[in-house]
Amino acid sequence: MSQVRTESDSMGQVEVPADRYWGAQTQRSIHNFPIGRDTFVWGRPLIKALGILKKGAAQANAELGELPQDVADHIVRAAEEVIAGELDDHFPLVVFQTGSGTQSNMNANEVIANRAIELAGGELGSKTPVHPNDHVNRGQSSNDTFPTAMHIAVLLELRDRLEGDVAVLRETLAGKAEEYADVVKVGRTHLQDATPITLGQEIGGWVAQIDYAMAEVRHAGEGLRELAIGGTAVGTGLNAHPRFGELAARKMGEEAGLELQSATNTFAALSAHDALVQTSAALRTLAGALMKMANDVRWLASGPRNGIGELLIPENEPGSSIMPGKVNPTQSEAMTMVATRVFGNDATVAFAGTQGNFQLNVFKPVMVHAVLESIRLIADACRAFNDGCAVGIVPNTARIEANLASNLMTVTALNPHIGYDRSAAIAKKAHKEGTTLREAALASGEVTAEQFDAWVVPADMTRPRAVD
Amino acid sequence: MSQVRTESDSMGQVEVPADRYWGAQTQRSIHNFPIGRDTFVWGRPLIKALGILKKGAAQANAELGELPQDVADHIVRAAEEVIAGELDDHFPLVVFQTGSGTQSNMNANEVIANRAIELAGGELGSKTPVHPNDHVNRGQSSNDTFPTAMHIAVLLELRDRLEGDVAVLRETLAGKAEEYADVVKVGRTHLQDATPITLGQEIGGWVAQIDYAMAEVRHAGEGLRELAIGGTAVGTGLNAHPRFGELAARKMGEEAGLELQSATNTFAALSAHDALVQTSAALRTLAGALMKMANDVRWLASGPRNGIGELLIPENEPGSSIMPGKVNPTQSEAMTMVATRVFGNDATVAFAGTQGNFQLNVFKPVMVHAVLESIRLIADACRAFNDGCAVGIVPNTARIEANLASNLMTVTALNPHIGYDRSAAIAKKAHKEGTTLREAALASGEVTAEQFDAWVVPADMTRPRAVD
Amino acid sequence: MSQVRTESDSMGQVEVPADRYWGAQTQRSIHNFPIGRDTFVWGRPLIKALGILKKGAAQANAELGELPQDVADHIVRAAEEVIAGELDDHFPLVVFQTGSGTQSNMNANEVIANRAIELAGGELGSKTPVHPNDHVNRGQSSNDTFPTAMHIAVLLELRDRLEGDVAVLRETLAGKAEEYADVVKVGRTHLQDATPITLGQEIGGWVAQIDYAMAEVRHAGEGLRELAIGGTAVGTGLNAHPRFGELAARKMGEEAGLELQSATNTFAALSAHDALVQTSAALRTLAGALMKMANDVRWLASGPRNGIGELLIPENEPGSSIMPGKVNPTQSEAMTMVATRVFGNDATVAFAGTQGNFQLNVFKPVMVHAVLESIRLIADACRAFNDGCAVGIVPNTARIEANLASNLMTVTALNPHIGYDRSAAIAKKAHKEGTTLREAALASGEVTAEQFDAWVVPADMTRPRAVD
Amino acid sequence: MSQVRTESDSMGQVEVPADRYWGAQTQRSIHNFPIGRDTFVWGRPLIKALGILKKGAAQANAELGELPQDVADHIVRAAEEVIAGELDDHFPLVVFQTGSGTQSNMNANEVIANRAIELAGGELGSKTPVHPNDHVNRGQSSNDTFPTAMHIAVLLELRDRLEGDVAVLRETLAGKAEEYADVVKVGRTHLQDATPITLGQEIGGWVAQIDYAMAEVRHAGEGLRELAIGGTAVGTGLNAHPRFGELAARKMGEEAGLELQSATNTFAALSAHDALVQTSAALRTLAGALMKMANDVRWLASGPRNGIGELLIPENEPGSSIMPGKVNPTQSEAMTMVATRVFGNDATVAFAGTQGNFQLNVFKPVMVHAVLESIRLIADACRAFNDGCAVGIVPNTARIEANLASNLMTVTALNPHIGYDRSAAIAKKAHKEGTTLREAALASGEVTAEQFDAWVVPADMTRPRAVD
Repeated sequence: MSQVRTESDSMGQVEVPADRYWGAQTQRSIHNFPIGRDTFVWGRPLIKALGILKKGAAQANAELGELPQDVADHIVRAAEEVIAGELDDHFPLVVFQTGSGTQSNMNANEVIANRAIELAGGELGSKTPVHPNDHVNRGQSSNDTFPTAMHIAVLLELRDRLEGDVAVLRETLAGKAEEYADVVKVGRTHLQDATPITLGQEIGGWVAQIDYAMAEVRHAGEGLRELAIGGTAVGTGLNAHPRFGELAARKMGEEAGLELQSATNTFAALSAHDALVQTSAALRTLAGALMKMANDVRWLASGPRNGIGELLIPENEPGSSIMPGKVNPTQSEAMTMVATRVFGNDATVAFAGTQGNFQLNVFKPVMVHAVLESIRLIADACRAFNDGCAVGIVPNTARIEANLASNLMTVTALNPHIGYDRSAAIAKKAHKEGTTLREAALASGEVTAEQFDAWVVPADMTRPRAVD
Repeated sequence: MSQVRTESDSMGQVEVPADRYWGAQTQRSIHNFPIGRDTFVWGRPLIKALGILKKGAAQANAELGELPQDVADHIVRAAEEVIAGELDDHFPLVVFQTGSGTQSNMNANEVIANRAIELAGGELGSKTPVHPNDHVNRGQSSNDTFPTAMHIAVLLELRDRLEGDVAVLRETLAGKAEEYADVVKVGRTHLQDATPITLGQEIGGWVAQIDYAMAEVRHAGEGLRELAIGGTAVGTGLNAHPRFGELAARKMGEEAGLELQSATNTFAALSAHDALVQTSAALRTLAGALMKMANDVRWLASGPRNGIGELLIPENEPGSSIMPGKVNPTQSEAMTMVATRVFGNDATVAFAGTQGNFQLNVFKPVMVHAVLESIRLIADACRAFNDGCAVGIVPNTARIEANLASNLMTVTALNPHIGYDRSAAIAKKAHKEGTTLREAALASGEVTAEQFDAWVVPADMTRPRAVD
Repeated sequence: MSQVRTESDSMGQVEVPADRYWGAQTQRSIHNFPIGRDTFVWGRPLIKALGILKKGAAQANAELGELPQDVADHIVRAAEEVIAGELDDHFPLVVFQTGSGTQSNMNANEVIANRAIELAGGELGSKTPVHPNDHVNRGQSSNDTFPTAMHIAVLLELRDRLEGDVAVLRETLAGKAEEYADVVKVGRTHLQDATPITLGQEIGGWVAQIDYAMAEVRHAGEGLRELAIGGTAVGTGLNAHPRFGELAARKMGEEAGLELQSATNTFAALSAHDALVQTSAALRTLAGALMKMANDVRWLASGPRNGIGELLIPENEPGSSIMPGKVNPTQSEAMTMVATRVFGNDATVAFAGTQGNFQLNVFKPVMVHAVLESIRLIADACRAFNDGCAVGIVPNTARIEANLASNLMTVTALNPHIGYDRSAAIAKKAHKEGTTLREAALASGEVTAEQFDAWVVPADMTRPRAVD
Repeated sequence: MSQVRTESDSMGQVEVPADRYWGAQTQRSIHNFPIGRDTFVWGRPLIKALGILKKGAAQANAELGELPQDVADHIVRAAEEVIAGELDDHFPLVVFQTGSGTQSNMNANEVIANRAIELAGGELGSKTPVHPNDHVNRGQSSNDTFPTAMHIAVLLELRDRLEGDVAVLRETLAGKAEEYADVVKVGRTHLQDATPITLGQEIGGWVAQIDYAMAEVRHAGEGLRELAIGGTAVGTGLNAHPRFGELAARKMGEEAGLELQSATNTFAALSAHDALVQTSAALRTLAGALMKMANDVRWLASGPRNGIGELLIPENEPGSSIMPGKVNPTQSEAMTMVATRVFGNDATVAFAGTQGNFQLNVFKPVMVHAVLESIRLIADACRAFNDGCAVGIVPNTARIEANLASNLMTVTALNPHIGYDRSAAIAKKAHKEGTTLREAALASGEVTAEQFDAWVVPADMTRPRAVD
């Protein structure tokens, strides 16, 4: 198709599309890895991270005298275009390639070199005045750059995507917890009626789970601040300036607005990705928390007649064309499906994380892809759940009150007044006759209506008892 | 402690307890692998399979002229004691040992040799007239015997344990499905009220899932009938009589009452255990089916007042000391916990199954242990669920009828008579005013009581419509 | 943006892009589920299956007198365009939506209705003469159509994609196994040198694993031939002609070229997807088999100097810019990464498969998506591995022979001639002095050069011994 | 069998063995849950934790005036016997029971009550002067006590078992890393020869992974310090003194020597166990790190002739009866099998962790059991690996040096002196002719022997280059 340009690498010449900046190695990868092309091309987060990586590396090399300043400047300008997303069409590779991510690292080198050459007025493919390996990849190896980009990509997605979208949902729920702090309702354990709680307490439990999980995600993310950069091919830092790793990490951190540093142990940083495994696990915990919440919501909203029906949720699409009140909990369904996907992604990440050998783990691309996907899905699902469900959750007060009135567990409140045995007898009577506890209590003659109403106050059962 | 005896192997001498038949290699394994000793000692199924294996091997070798008949006879007698469970105390090893199961194979060789020596009037540890390697292990290698024993152990547990215990539950459920074939109740989709079904149909869906899963378990088991025996150390059959594998498999099959044969490809039979992975997967599907059933049961039995409450389940233990009718669905809880464990076991099996290298997969013990555990747990849980729950499930007819009466989805039955729009208006009216559909219909003036009762017959909605 | 058209559903009016056939419910879903939009829009396989579904349904309804022939004809024509891929741009929905796939079912109904209207000369959005619900969805519910489409999509991908791509690799390997049937080499167990095998035997083991796994995939696929169609909303078939399910399944089968039938138990078919779980598990087994093969290939090709080095694989991209002979096993890396992804997908499918409640499992979309992704990835990876690696695998004969010559395990062949003790002494001598076995044997004076060469024939150790 | 005693609960009377302290509810559970009895009876860690729980609860209740001091004293004495392991035979229940662990909580209540009664001179089963519910379970519910015991059990096992056994291995490896800091050897990436590293660096990478994982385990453990105690049945603390949770947690902490506190959110503490899920995940990461280490060890020790052979590991059992030097890496095999089991356990824990509903997660027993099993297995395997392998690892210096000498990647060191092109030509020549790099270099005439030896110093390639 159309125009081509000849590019070359150590294996020889390759024709590439004339309107693309990539070079020979990228083109070879397109040819060699036609795997899942429809959906596994790298997206923004990794491309941006590669841009940040290459910019920081060039700056560090220049500062250390390893690159001429003008070459570095050209690289920086091209890398900034990569960061900005202007060159995304020049990153055609898929996840399933070399397990070190070599080809995506070379894709970045080639695109940035050619764009830098262009900026410098040179000829594409000439490798002059900017060489993809000697300059853009200076002091680097795929083995340390790709895991560096992995960490930066994930950290940015955690900060720029996950935090915000989860927070929106978290705040909505926290607001509901406060708003409904006094709505007393039936508690449920073993799916069985239990003593009362407030709706605020119930929702507050969800918020606490989200808070815990997010704290764990942030904690795991701390481990990602350690970058492999400076380790080069096997972790020894061969061919890099001794201060390169540290300085490059700092430069990348400045660009990304992140605190970054070179890894404590560069050997582990190439041969394993345990901080990524931990991040994936924390995302799994977050997904589990969201699944529990979404499940509670749909069960509490089940009905309208023959379920629990204590919550009303927004109707966003036709549930049943004929039956009013049938509101399918579609946002809960999307959220719980996302949770199962996040669990699968985590299984991939953890499995892959064990398979390193010697100085390299060659499952890098599949690991970072799965983590980025999990972040994206959780974030999107939180936003959708918030907008399409959480903001519109309201208690079905009539149902809540009716349920509470029919609940027999509130009999516990009679114990201090008439003793356990009489209380139990009243509950048994109510159960047997299918009446409310109040009806049975009055019928028993053990308590008056006034006494019952004074003593059996479900709200009191949701609060710590007064201490003298 | 107490008396010891000296045993030896190619590495030298080792002291073993005087009252145990095992020899040097078993003793070394006890010393070297103190891992999970409390709960990971091999149990009956694998020991029995080792006995069957060694008996069949001795018989085949004798028939092929590879073993003197008297030596074979002694081995057979000792192996029969292993099969019968009389020597279980002589199998002290744990799962986490050499990944080929070598030490458990040697444990069997040593115990059978010493017991055979004893039967022959010889001296324990003398290896005369029966040698653990030269005779008991004749024409064999751990690499082909252990996977052979794995298959036999799993096949026997599937046949002798799983089939019966699952069938008991399956039959109970099938009986309930038939018994309650005419109990019309609310259907539920998306946890929302839907058009009617019968309780028999609902339970029948569970039965169909169990039937499918069991058929898949049986199908996977077919793959286990191919035994590695005859492949010896690397699959080539070196040191075994060319007809040994085939004949030994036949002999083992006769003992076990199973159709067994030597593997089509002995190389794959040593280096991978895909039929075991498939068996684990089918057990996972079965566990998933049982989880769905157990979940439905507990949700349908939720309440007593503020849940769905359409099923009544046996009360086997105190639920709440004061509240009658609170019956915790404990059997469902045990069953669903078993399901999560089976899922974990399957994750172990599948992971381990990928990790073979060259001519051997050295995750054999952990794989077979997990499969045997899954079988045991599912079988036990089915039996417990059957006895402690399924047999006592009865419909809560009053609640079922009340729910059905309050269900608005039956409005669909009015469509052919008064049209979609009027029907929908009636449903809307009922929903808004909180009445039954019948009340709203009569109040609307669109239908008479006679018409309503003639037209809205939920049972008709559970059957195919009549065709002219 | 640009032109819009007004569409409506039971909730009211919605504006949709004028150049798209979809209607109100699709548009609402776009709005409500902005989850993973970049990569989770349904692709060809599911869209095609929806087309087949709707065509078959219309044909069956027409034949049963449930649809006017002309309406059915218009639907069929529109559905054929969906099948052919001409309307893919009109299927904008993502996986994470209603868990029943309702919105994708409606997307198909809306697009086919509007296109049929157009073909009939009507006005888009008018629902005349073809109504998305009353006509295209006639006798159907999302609850039975979507799982029907799931099965059809997976069956087609198994047949049209997986079978061919796996077969290409399988045949290449089988050819190599035959070609190298006489290349005798070191066997390896526990990663340790073992007795000889042939390269053909080694590769044949891989082929056997692939054959077994594919047979299991096909077996699992048999379960997919049972379609939910005819069950409508809850499995009872309400609103469908009693013969609709059976006839529609047959029509769909004719279109797809597949044997299809209506499900034995429609209740299970809506509330669980165990045949899909089993298919996923079989794909996992296949992925595990491919992982073992790919791992063996890269280990056997490890080196060039300091590894095993017995296989040479094609060099498809620069491995090291300076070091010749360093050929990174990139196709093995892509394949094993795919395997970890398939494992993750399977974890998603199995988890989701357990989460049905009552009459519906609402994890349908995430399940079918993961299975389709696994099929695609395995197929693509097999093709890439074949073209980029398998076809070019050749034995490194010099290394194989040198390894074999240095191997001490061949000492076994001396046993029958000079006895175990002398043989062992020779092996010990060779090990201690770092010589070959032949050198040590001759130096021992126990055998002559002629005897050694006659007796120690590794090739003989790879074949059954002669039987008199 | 033998003597029995009658015990009772709210459902009536039950006969229990006369020589056991347990009561009616324990006996019912034995009857109702015969699931996996051989291997799933709770062991020491959970029983001890129940003792600590009940002792602390009694102390707190006494201090708050909720229990008479003498009753509390009797409970404390009995609980101390539970803690000390003197009553383990009185805890017969299995993991698969009520999902809240109710029956194990009651088992503790019953045993402690009866033993306290005995200490007080009362009659077993009389519930006087110490009542299992009113006194031992005072202010508690299974719903808050069992998760409290779960956390304490896991924290103690982490501290008292995991820390020590992992540290032993970690220190051995760290010692090896230091000892072999100057052993220069071939690095390997993609399983291909790469530039040199030291053995110390290689082992140090393993140590770094273990350190990271253990830090993550400790971090996750911090979340376990928050105890559910004080939440009682649904999280509201009904029936407990308002200060009970906080005070009881403190008392338990004093007994256990742990910093413990009552949960920030008691609702989440009952309905989810995310800190346990996180702990499981961190254990998984640890298992993954150990798997990578164990895999590296066995590959580096592969051979003796036809593998990598750079490490020598202890021979603990016969590898091959005839072949010296064949040392099967059995400890690596046990360790990697443990890793796959830990992965399975984690899958169980994470799955179960998502399945809470409303105020309770009823998968508590299976979750804590799996975590305790993972801890036990990792600890045992670390100890076994240390004693049976790590302490005896020594470099095979001759092989390491030979490999390094034959490695072509050291050519990189010539670049600065003779340029890239000439260096590459020398490497190509060596590769083609099968010589060492040194031989090819001298033959090329580009460098003298003195120059080569001065310039190509692999050790220099393992260190940062000197900076001026």
